Amino acid sequence: MAITDTLSHMELYDKIRLGDRIALSRAITLVESRQSDHVETANALLDTCMRNTPEQTSMRVAVSGAPGVGKSTFIESVSSHILEAGHRLAVLAVDPSSQLSGGSILGDKTRMHTLSAHPNAFVRPSPAGSHPGGVAERTREATLLCETAGFDVIIVETVGVGQSETQVRTMVDLLLLLISPGGGDEVQGIKRGILELADLVVVNKADGALASQARETMGQYTHALRVLFSQGQAPDVLSCSSLEGSGVSAAWQALSTLFENMSAHDLADIRSQQEQTWFKERLRQLVVERFITHHRFLSEYDKKLAQIAQRELSVRTALAEMTALTDALLSGRGEQI
Amino acid sequence: MAITDTLSHMELYDKIRLGDRIALSRAITLVESRQSDHVETANALLDTCMRNTPEQTSMRVAVSGAPGVGKSTFIESVSSHILEAGHRLAVLAVDPSSQLSGGSILGDKTRMHTLSAHPNAFVRPSPAGSHPGGVAERTREATLLCETAGFDVIIVETVGVGQSETQVRTMVDLLLLLISPGGGDEVQGIKRGILELADLVVVNKADGALASQARETMGQYTHALRVLFSQGQAPDVLSCSSLEGSGVSAAWQALSTLFENMSAHDLADIRSQQEQTWFKERLRQLVVERFITHHRFLSEYDKKLAQIAQRELSVRTALAEMTALTDALLSGRGEQI
Repeated sequence: MAITDTLSHMELYDKIRLGDRIALSRAITLVESRQSDHVETANALLDTCMRNTPEQTSMRVAVSGAPGVGKSTFIESVSSHILEAGHRLAVLAVDPSSQLSGGSILGDKTRMHTLSAHPNAFVRPSPAGSHPGGVAERTREATLLCETAGFDVIIVETVGVGQSETQVRTMVDLLLLLISPGGGDEVQGIKRGILELADLVVVNKADGALASQARETMGQYTHALRVLFSQGQAPDVLSCSSLEGSGVSAAWQALSTLFENMSAHDLADIRSQQEQTWFKERLRQLVVERFITHHRFLSEYDKKLAQIAQRELSVRTALAEMTALTDALLSGRGEQI
Repeated sequence: MAITDTLSHMELYDKIRLGDRIALSRAITLVESRQSDHVETANALLDTCMRNTPEQTSMRVAVSGAPGVGKSTFIESVSSHILEAGHRLAVLAVDPSSQLSGGSILGDKTRMHTLSAHPNAFVRPSPAGSHPGGVAERTREATLLCETAGFDVIIVETVGVGQSETQVRTMVDLLLLLISPGGGDEVQGIKRGILELADLVVVNKADGALASQARETMGQYTHALRVLFSQGQAPDVLSCSSLEGSGVSAAWQALSTLFENMSAHDLADIRSQQEQTWFKERLRQLVVERFITHHRFLSEYDKKLAQIAQRELSVRTALAEMTALTDALLSGRGEQI
């Protein structure tokens, strides 16, 4: 079955607006495709979604944390509170190795299938085999499609180990960082710098034998964040048990309060800035990528890099020569020098 | 007096090698100049310095901290230990507003003049009026010139408030972060993220009424860094009084030990990587700069950005169109589309 069959982007858009989940799924597959006719339809569809802001402002939340911290279980647990409050919830995964994407060896997919089956929930794993930058870009677009379909809470699941958090931070309103009880080794896998992006920190697994350790970890993080955020408001540190359900409602309440405190005007402004920043950054990457892979540029670049490594050339001279080449290429004299 | 009079880059190089401080000063002024004949001589001089590695491996240290933490006083105090140990010391400032550069209203320049007058010390303020990226680049080049002149300890003074630390971190072997006693407000001005770049944290002003507060701050930072660095070795936190001189020798000892623990092979490798990274990053900046200011590109870029801000266009379509323009410019068809 073709992704869009013979649907035009407007037909697809109309179906999505009416809440057709199959159309939504197909649209997400469409934006993930690199086939040229798909790309064209996808661009037109996204432009249409962009021009038609949904009436209801959605809440976009990233749930981040190291592998094994229990992100899927937490999302499943918190989703019951979100759905009970009457929201329509979409869950998107950024990391291809996440449980959502089938990375689990414990059969957790079954649970997510339960969530997927809920009439007001939509669960979408991340595309496998894409590079992280691409996944972030596709997830950003999937968010727009889900909002068009009327989902007013979007959870983006992401693994707190790489560069993806910085990217994810620019596509959500709030970032919740999940951590495990215990200091030192237990927080292995969270990269420094991610703590600073968090709006809310939640110590998960505060149950059974780990309950007292979770309290201790809460205290340690509260103090550490106060030092880190000496200039601003440090994020709150809570604890919960996704397994027993305790503290999960409080985490959802904390998120809701943070969201309510953002005025509609601020939110529109922040999101517009995020879109523009995303455009600028991706454009920089694309321009450099196009240049670097240009045959004239690439051979010079490799030569200069080797000369610098062998201390034959100063960075300054190398830059001057590469700049001259850049200018020549830009003025159409690339083949003459 | 002309910067180089009629000296060729080789004559200047020879004089620097022989320890001629006036030649060194002139050479630094030369690399700061944007005059085209100066640029040419400067490039040739830096290439020569690059090709002739000094026999002695220098130790490069950044001293960073918020305004008012006492960087100049600390550097002056620690310099006596460095000079007593028989080293030759060069001090370079990155921040144009630093006391070294005459930013002080308390006449601290006098003290730095005392250090400048020492036969084994060389003090150089940062060039005024340059943009931060440029200052970092010039400081990197000044380091190379000072090493050529036989200075084996290089201190780079920098203010811990902006982007400059990330840049400075790639031009030194070690970063010492100075902080003031007291939590919260007192550490205002240090940006988050800088703590994570530090190899050694020193609480300054541990004297008089602030002595006990300094001890408390030491404890707080020790704990916070342990949480932050859960994966690796957290930097030590010491305290000192630059005014009374206590603890300053211990700070120097800690730096020396950290440096001695880096093998010559590792150090050469790290520095080569730093040079290559610097080249790649500056080149990316330059390529994007050249593109962005190209008239065809600039007008399209502005148009797209406005359309995104007004939700008329998806980022994706904007990127696709800008990429097509990039390819056209690169293939010399820039004026045809």
